[in-house]
Amino acid sequence: MNVTYSPGLEGVIAGETAISTVGKEGMGLNYRGYSIYDLAEHAGFEEVAHLLIHGRLPNRDELDAFRTRLITMRVLPEGLRHVLEQLPPTAHPMDVLRTGCSALGAMEPESAGHNQYGVAERLVASFPAMLLYWHHFHKTGERIATKSPEKGLAGHFLALLHGKTPDDLARQLVNASLILYAEHEFNASTFSARVTASTLSDFYSAVTSAIGTLRGPLHGGANEEAMKLITRFKSPEEAENGIYEMLERKEKIMGFGHRVYKKADPRSAVIKEWSRRISEASGNMLLYQVSERIENILQKEKGLYPNLDFYSASAYHLCGIPTAMFTPVFVFARICGWSAHIIEQRAANRLYRPIANYIGPEPMPYVAIEERT
Amino acid sequence: MNVTYSPGLEGVIAGETAISTVGKEGMGLNYRGYSIYDLAEHAGFEEVAHLLIHGRLPNRDELDAFRTRLITMRVLPEGLRHVLEQLPPTAHPMDVLRTGCSALGAMEPESAGHNQYGVAERLVASFPAMLLYWHHFHKTGERIATKSPEKGLAGHFLALLHGKTPDDLARQLVNASLILYAEHEFNASTFSARVTASTLSDFYSAVTSAIGTLRGPLHGGANEEAMKLITRFKSPEEAENGIYEMLERKEKIMGFGHRVYKKADPRSAVIKEWSRRISEASGNMLLYQVSERIENILQKEKGLYPNLDFYSASAYHLCGIPTAMFTPVFVFARICGWSAHIIEQRAANRLYRPIANYIGPEPMPYVAIEERT
Repeated sequence: MNVTYSPGLEGVIAGETAISTVGKEGMGLNYRGYSIYDLAEHAGFEEVAHLLIHGRLPNRDELDAFRTRLITMRVLPEGLRHVLEQLPPTAHPMDVLRTGCSALGAMEPESAGHNQYGVAERLVASFPAMLLYWHHFHKTGERIATKSPEKGLAGHFLALLHGKTPDDLARQLVNASLILYAEHEFNASTFSARVTASTLSDFYSAVTSAIGTLRGPLHGGANEEAMKLITRFKSPEEAENGIYEMLERKEKIMGFGHRVYKKADPRSAVIKEWSRRISEASGNMLLYQVSERIENILQKEKGLYPNLDFYSASAYHLCGIPTAMFTPVFVFARICGWSAHIIEQRAANRLYRPIANYIGPEPMPYVAIEERT
Repeated sequence: MNVTYSPGLEGVIAGETAISTVGKEGMGLNYRGYSIYDLAEHAGFEEVAHLLIHGRLPNRDELDAFRTRLITMRVLPEGLRHVLEQLPPTAHPMDVLRTGCSALGAMEPESAGHNQYGVAERLVASFPAMLLYWHHFHKTGERIATKSPEKGLAGHFLALLHGKTPDDLARQLVNASLILYAEHEFNASTFSARVTASTLSDFYSAVTSAIGTLRGPLHGGANEEAMKLITRFKSPEEAENGIYEMLERKEKIMGFGHRVYKKADPRSAVIKEWSRRISEASGNMLLYQVSERIENILQKEKGLYPNLDFYSASAYHLCGIPTAMFTPVFVFARICGWSAHIIEQRAANRLYRPIANYIGPEPMPYVAIEERT
């Protein structure tokens, strides 16, 4: 038995997985053996969702059937729409998804006729609907139907968000981004999903835990923090001065470095190229140039490299995605990885119950209330 | 760096705590240094809640002020009542609490004026209201006010449940039970709350994770499983035959043994005595006698001892608590421990991000969809 204490469980093996390889030397990042470079370049998000949830890349018939199921699952039950209407316009969008997922679990619980694969697909299909039903209801009062002619989730999300057919480039960018964000081994949100699943709790509980965990600025919230950083500067030169000042004050700069990747985040180059492409197409290079300047300084001064979150910020912004929706988009993607891990955890379950090192007071006699100071 | 793999993190130290001692030899179970025997015998639940959340036993003035705050927080916001009405009558009661907690987080988020202590107190005060508002709305259509003249949470819960002043014995029993269930170190639900809190996510997210984790039959659901077991038998003799048959078939018997306590659960003797007292007072000894017979067989045949969940089942039943509410009562209590751990985690935070042992396929070339079989 192991009794070494490693803060934050850094370097501690908390389980086995066949889903992805993070930080395996020489292996980049693979989903079930396939390189994310290949997947992000050639695949649709639904193929990757199928790979993660069902264990293999679908053939044409399987993909068509899978897409058709997802499209029929885009409509929300009436009760859930009422719940979303009760969440205030000022609510954090991640609170909306967390509550929407939890409420759906009360309305469509796991059962023999709605097994874990059905729940996973339902959640993949309906998270954009939850977010945008709530968003439009409070913005304009409209109760949108959460349907679109878009076959894929990337285009569907943009169509619901903007109320029109998205540009090809934005659709392709979001598709690639969803693939890059879909899975990442035992990150904190996925680990929390596995901890919840390990008591043999239901699928929705595990996903609800993961959403709440992703919400934090040290995890999913990092892309929003990166956006706040890069929009603070009006030019690359201003960014250079600002970043050097932050470094002097030893402030944390979000979107850089990673607990497991010590040399580089393999996903960053892919999203950086998409950020460059959409910046050029839109004729607005400022955010990209500011981002690149910040990247160069941190590389030179601290040896830090950007992680996936950093160039996602400018890329999403130029797709017209509001900053407050960056972390929810992460949910639309990562639900695939979470689902795969919940299914894997259940197949070889062991309750997660670590121990703590006690550093509190020694045993004390009880003091009656009259004698307390 | 530690790379030993311990399934379920058994025996792995996942952090430091000053809140309680579980399984420390010779120390029984203490909350911040005070023995649970003393607390369960002498204290009101609110004193223990104050001890856990605010770090010390309150004096008379502090206790009065604390109780007054909790009493004013028993009323639910209108939006939350609407949300609860949308959750179907068939919903799992833990789904109701999980969704209620999450929705409250969207409506009353943490802020400078509503800090972590305020959120903790709000949740302590309002979980019984969430459960019983939903319960009565679906049972009779009544929208109850979730107020009662009861000063303590134990009596308040029973008053809302039964719509009348509770018996002294039932109130005292539930009070002691809430104290026993209030805190238990790095159990799975508390650990999940700390994992969620470690991304610097909000308080409600961490509690929502904990509720979903507690929901599983390997954790909070165990008291309901124990109830199903003991009500299966019409006499101690029938129980004896039934248990021997289960042992022969190697079936798992819920409510016995514990990952950390290897010899005995120190809480069991306390709740067993309460079960005996309420059984005698009600003139209905059957469940108690069946329970005791099962305890004796498992002790003799397997060396297993009952944990807190086992005698809680008969004790709660004789207080008129429906079996489906056993795990929610666990929430009413454990919110104190969860809150203490979230506050402690934040005070010395480190992101929980373990690693996994990869056992999946080696890198494979991408296969275009037309070439997939």
